[in-house]
Amino acid sequence: MIRNHVGGAWQTATDDGRPVHDAVTGEEIARVSSAGVDFAAALDHGRRTGGPALRELTFHQRAALLKALGQHLREHRQRLYAVSARTGATPGDSKFDVDGGIGVLLAYASKAKRELPNDTVYVDGAVEPLGRGGTFLGQHVCVPLHGVAVQVNAFNFPVWGPLEKFAPAFLAGVPSLVKPATPTAFLTAELVELIVESGILPPGALQFVAGSLGDTFEHLTGQDLVSFTGSASTAQTLRANPALVRHAVRFTAEADSLNLSALGPDAVPGTAEFDLFVKGLVTEMTVKAGQKCTAIRRAFVPAAHVDAVVQAVSARLAATVIGNPAAADVRMGALASLDQRDEVRRSVAALARAGRITYGDPEKVDVVDADPDRGAFISPILLVGDPDRAEPHDVEAFGPVATILPYDSTAQLIDYAARGQGSLAGSIVTADTGFARDVVLGAAPWHGRLLVLNARDAAESTGHGAPLPALVHGGPGRAGGGEEMGGIRGVLHHMQRTAVQGDPDTLAAVTGRWVTGAERHHGDVHPFRKHLEELRPGDTIVAGPRRVTQQDVEHFAEFTGDTFYAHMDADAAAANPLFGARVAHGYLVVSLAAGLFVDPDPGPVLANFGVDNLRFLTPVKFDDELTVTLTCKQVTPRESTGYGEVRWDADITRQDGESVARYDVLTLVAKRAAGQ
Amino acid sequence: MIRNHVGGAWQTATDDGRPVHDAVTGEEIARVSSAGVDFAAALDHGRRTGGPALRELTFHQRAALLKALGQHLREHRQRLYAVSARTGATPGDSKFDVDGGIGVLLAYASKAKRELPNDTVYVDGAVEPLGRGGTFLGQHVCVPLHGVAVQVNAFNFPVWGPLEKFAPAFLAGVPSLVKPATPTAFLTAELVELIVESGILPPGALQFVAGSLGDTFEHLTGQDLVSFTGSASTAQTLRANPALVRHAVRFTAEADSLNLSALGPDAVPGTAEFDLFVKGLVTEMTVKAGQKCTAIRRAFVPAAHVDAVVQAVSARLAATVIGNPAAADVRMGALASLDQRDEVRRSVAALARAGRITYGDPEKVDVVDADPDRGAFISPILLVGDPDRAEPHDVEAFGPVATILPYDSTAQLIDYAARGQGSLAGSIVTADTGFARDVVLGAAPWHGRLLVLNARDAAESTGHGAPLPALVHGGPGRAGGGEEMGGIRGVLHHMQRTAVQGDPDTLAAVTGRWVTGAERHHGDVHPFRKHLEELRPGDTIVAGPRRVTQQDVEHFAEFTGDTFYAHMDADAAAANPLFGARVAHGYLVVSLAAGLFVDPDPGPVLANFGVDNLRFLTPVKFDDELTVTLTCKQVTPRESTGYGEVRWDADITRQDGESVARYDVLTLVAKRAAGQ
Repeated sequence: MIRNHVGGAWQTATDDGRPVHDAVTGEEIARVSSAGVDFAAALDHGRRTGGPALRELTFHQRAALLKALGQHLREHRQRLYAVSARTGATPGDSKFDVDGGIGVLLAYASKAKRELPNDTVYVDGAVEPLGRGGTFLGQHVCVPLHGVAVQVNAFNFPVWGPLEKFAPAFLAGVPSLVKPATPTAFLTAELVELIVESGILPPGALQFVAGSLGDTFEHLTGQDLVSFTGSASTAQTLRANPALVRHAVRFTAEADSLNLSALGPDAVPGTAEFDLFVKGLVTEMTVKAGQKCTAIRRAFVPAAHVDAVVQAVSARLAATVIGNPAAADVRMGALASLDQRDEVRRSVAALARAGRITYGDPEKVDVVDADPDRGAFISPILLVGDPDRAEPHDVEAFGPVATILPYDSTAQLIDYAARGQGSLAGSIVTADTGFARDVVLGAAPWHGRLLVLNARDAAESTGHGAPLPALVHGGPGRAGGGEEMGGIRGVLHHMQRTAVQGDPDTLAAVTGRWVTGAERHHGDVHPFRKHLEELRPGDTIVAGPRRVTQQDVEHFAEFTGDTFYAHMDADAAAANPLFGARVAHGYLVVSLAAGLFVDPDPGPVLANFGVDNLRFLTPVKFDDELTVTLTCKQVTPRESTGYGEVRWDADITRQDGESVARYDVLTLVAKRAAGQ
Repeated sequence: MIRNHVGGAWQTATDDGRPVHDAVTGEEIARVSSAGVDFAAALDHGRRTGGPALRELTFHQRAALLKALGQHLREHRQRLYAVSARTGATPGDSKFDVDGGIGVLLAYASKAKRELPNDTVYVDGAVEPLGRGGTFLGQHVCVPLHGVAVQVNAFNFPVWGPLEKFAPAFLAGVPSLVKPATPTAFLTAELVELIVESGILPPGALQFVAGSLGDTFEHLTGQDLVSFTGSASTAQTLRANPALVRHAVRFTAEADSLNLSALGPDAVPGTAEFDLFVKGLVTEMTVKAGQKCTAIRRAFVPAAHVDAVVQAVSARLAATVIGNPAAADVRMGALASLDQRDEVRRSVAALARAGRITYGDPEKVDVVDADPDRGAFISPILLVGDPDRAEPHDVEAFGPVATILPYDSTAQLIDYAARGQGSLAGSIVTADTGFARDVVLGAAPWHGRLLVLNARDAAESTGHGAPLPALVHGGPGRAGGGEEMGGIRGVLHHMQRTAVQGDPDTLAAVTGRWVTGAERHHGDVHPFRKHLEELRPGDTIVAGPRRVTQQDVEHFAEFTGDTFYAHMDADAAAANPLFGARVAHGYLVVSLAAGLFVDPDPGPVLANFGVDNLRFLTPVKFDDELTVTLTCKQVTPRESTGYGEVRWDADITRQDGESVARYDVLTLVAKRAAGQ
């Protein structure tokens, strides 16, 4: 009996549960049930224990835990591989699932450290001036929702699926309630056991319900989220759930879709792209026995090359050894269950009505080291279909099945693409950038992700079917209309974006960042003499004035070689519509400003590592006098080094107070040494 | 009979329709019906005529049309004011609605020109490297959905509401189908008549159905959108509509909510903030007779000051003249209909069960120049309620009604805020930035917008109730879970975000921008000699090398005054953990690079107006030799000036090929003069 992990403890169901079978041998290996689980209490545990514990941590601290968790799972992944084999997965399939899932944790941890602040509040977008006087500003902030992310997973990726949903929720500061699909729940249970054993996560951050979700939905509020991966019909049922509808609960669905791959007209037989197309199609058909929501179902081929593609694909399929994933040489295992096989056979029959099977027999398959009647084995099936019929665009056989569809023109291909009514992923195999542009932009409204594959990127390409943490995963319409991952976007999906309006001092207090108009602190100590812990947003140094003479400009021009006419040629500068007279170099202006604000002696400031958003606002003419105001804007400690990042607002003004340049200066500043 | 505008023509309903009454006099002024409208054909017209016409235009071209439309409406706004009075609106209410709506068009036009490219594709976020070799990249693009934005409006803002939904859809390139609420449909009809008369919009970009939407929803697909403003119960019905659920149609709802305003503990009677709170509350109660989805329903006051607030608010309410909006001195008009008044009376009765009425009588009101029985007039009602009862947090009286609720501590206030279960807007009236921070961050998960009001921002503040185009409008949970406007975010809500994976050349072709790794064109002509029309992404100049000597560094230090120890002090530089030896100034490096790549003679390049994302990647040591590669990245023509913006990628490398600095240079480049 697979146990549930709720309320901080393992809990065994109070009934006998439903049996789950080994996909290869058909023997019963576990039972699944959530009878006896108090779902309201589980949600409450997430909300009262998990949420507050997570919200105590900054994004960087959560990222560090995620990284530690990823490393822990990587160390123990053999345990996951062993269990994974019983789902019908080959060692390659298991790596895809297990290593892919661990990879998501590590990628998210690293992205969060680079792209999120070391803070609990995310500031979204620029400050919006809401009045001319600068006393009334707007700023969007994102804070974690105070609910639970209920995550309903599909059977095909029992490790990657839960981790891909968990990672962004965790980073956002929202606890998860994980529900696996029944046929492979035993593998997710093993994953959760590893996670719980590690002791890395704060209590309540992750709960696990092996069986049904019972009355969970009835207890949801507008602060909770539901993310679902699975069939389109279940997605529809959940989406219309009265409790979800009543509270406008955020609902994300990733549903199977009729994904396409298109062979470009340039990719004739004999080209590298032709071979890439064939190889990609066979991979998508056979990896996980085609049980991937992103797998290719519609393979569009220029009419003239249909026979060549059929031949090449068939030859590769014929060489694919099917059978017990534990056996050497086996490249394709079983479907997840006998029920799934029945379902695939029904779908193939429907597809065959709009075309013909050119490879494979849905009722017959040769297998190695397994019983084809007890295991959920099926042959790969390749069809050639009529793209003007509805079936190829509508019927999804969730197994090693694809249909080749001829097309005549780019416009026709784009039209066929749309008939899928929304897909998670598509690929276009072409070296022709113009064709790629037309098909990508033409098909994009119906796609969450589009891959362009050719000889230039094939070596590094991750392939048609692989969702990546940095890219959004999800598609419109039939694909569920959802969006997961996409880097930090996936984190923000779990947060409430709130527009905050107020005076500069209030906005600075709310965001922890100095904003234009907020109070500046002019202390006795130059801010460059302060260690990271001592610096406060608003710490300011005003320096100058420095006069910029004609001699300075000419000297700088000669020294750097920048003799651009606007600096050197009075007549040409006068004709320039923006200047009307000779002006100082922008780089001279910022160089002089640095000369004014820098404190030269050794101290906590280690380096200027960059400049952001530099804008030259007013031309500097000869004999203008420059003053610079440098204000500490944001302090970002790094978790495990001796320094952090400090962002400064630099405002260079001339004698009449007009800003001539405005920018952010980025420095690294040392923390106080221990004992200081 | 109000006509419908569908399929490019005005169309009169085929039945007698439903009567609509003047809110002040009660007389019938129009009839509303959409009988005879072919909704499938209307959607088709939007998709086949409106969508393609809009997608032909760039964001800047759409912005120019929006601006022209805004100016046209402004010229003719007297026509809208005249009709608006018959909805029960005072001249002030009408300005709020009409001028506010026009303001949204103009604000969106200007924001689009500043923040969107002059292109048809929006590039979202940074290029994501997906492999170490740089041959496989990811990039998100947003393209318009190919459907229709069905916009269901509320009765309270018959001009602002439709325009606020239309503007972002139009900018996105998505045609609109506008449905007003019946009681005020005649004003929206007048607006649409003005729009159609102007001839500014492309055919099919805006259609108008005065009556019910008939079977529209049955014809929606995953490419269409529905945005709804109105009651929470209608929002729930629409959200669960089977066709919407089946196709995962994007659905946005803005529903009435129990918005709060909180008086800070610092804002004791006698302070400016106390007066601002009282004035704000009275404004929100009386503007539009309190019929605003953002109006204050829950007014939280420190327990000690409840009596003072009741007194001050009551005094102001007593001075508010109610009656015919056409009469001088009238500050509050009628509710939109007698039905609405009945509904408000019922809600007041429910609220009174959890408190007491301290101002006003729901059955009795003195009115000027109107018949209180025929017009939908009602007195402002102020209650004092028990915040530990459910009613004040649950029952919304959609009229001039608010409940004062005492609180004791910040934590308690935040807890009460959450009991609203999701609000569009809240305000905190305080000068105390610490209190503001705590309440804003504590209440943010339940709010779409939070205003902090005090003496510092009051003069410029737009007030509690006003949604602004630059800020998101919408709230979680009870408020509908939607998000509208928010500047460019509102545009992107109408577009499909698609992750594109490919080699650099393909990504450059898809996005129209050069990306790292894409082909560079080294022509015979220096790119600074090319006019805007001649420049192509990828045009490149490589210049250098230039050796950086110790003398250069010391000379630059002396000249600019930047004698930072890392440049000047060998021992201190050696102790720096990042450098280990004296290094050249970053500003010297970029100045020398400009000296290398600039073409000095007068030509099409008018100015360097900025630098973005400058990062110093590797320290430059004495005698390093610098080479700079400057590559045209993006060309953005401006619509009505003689020049445009060109973004260049600058990559400074040293003798071993290592990048020492990387940044974007922003220049203004002239178009070819006519005849050239």
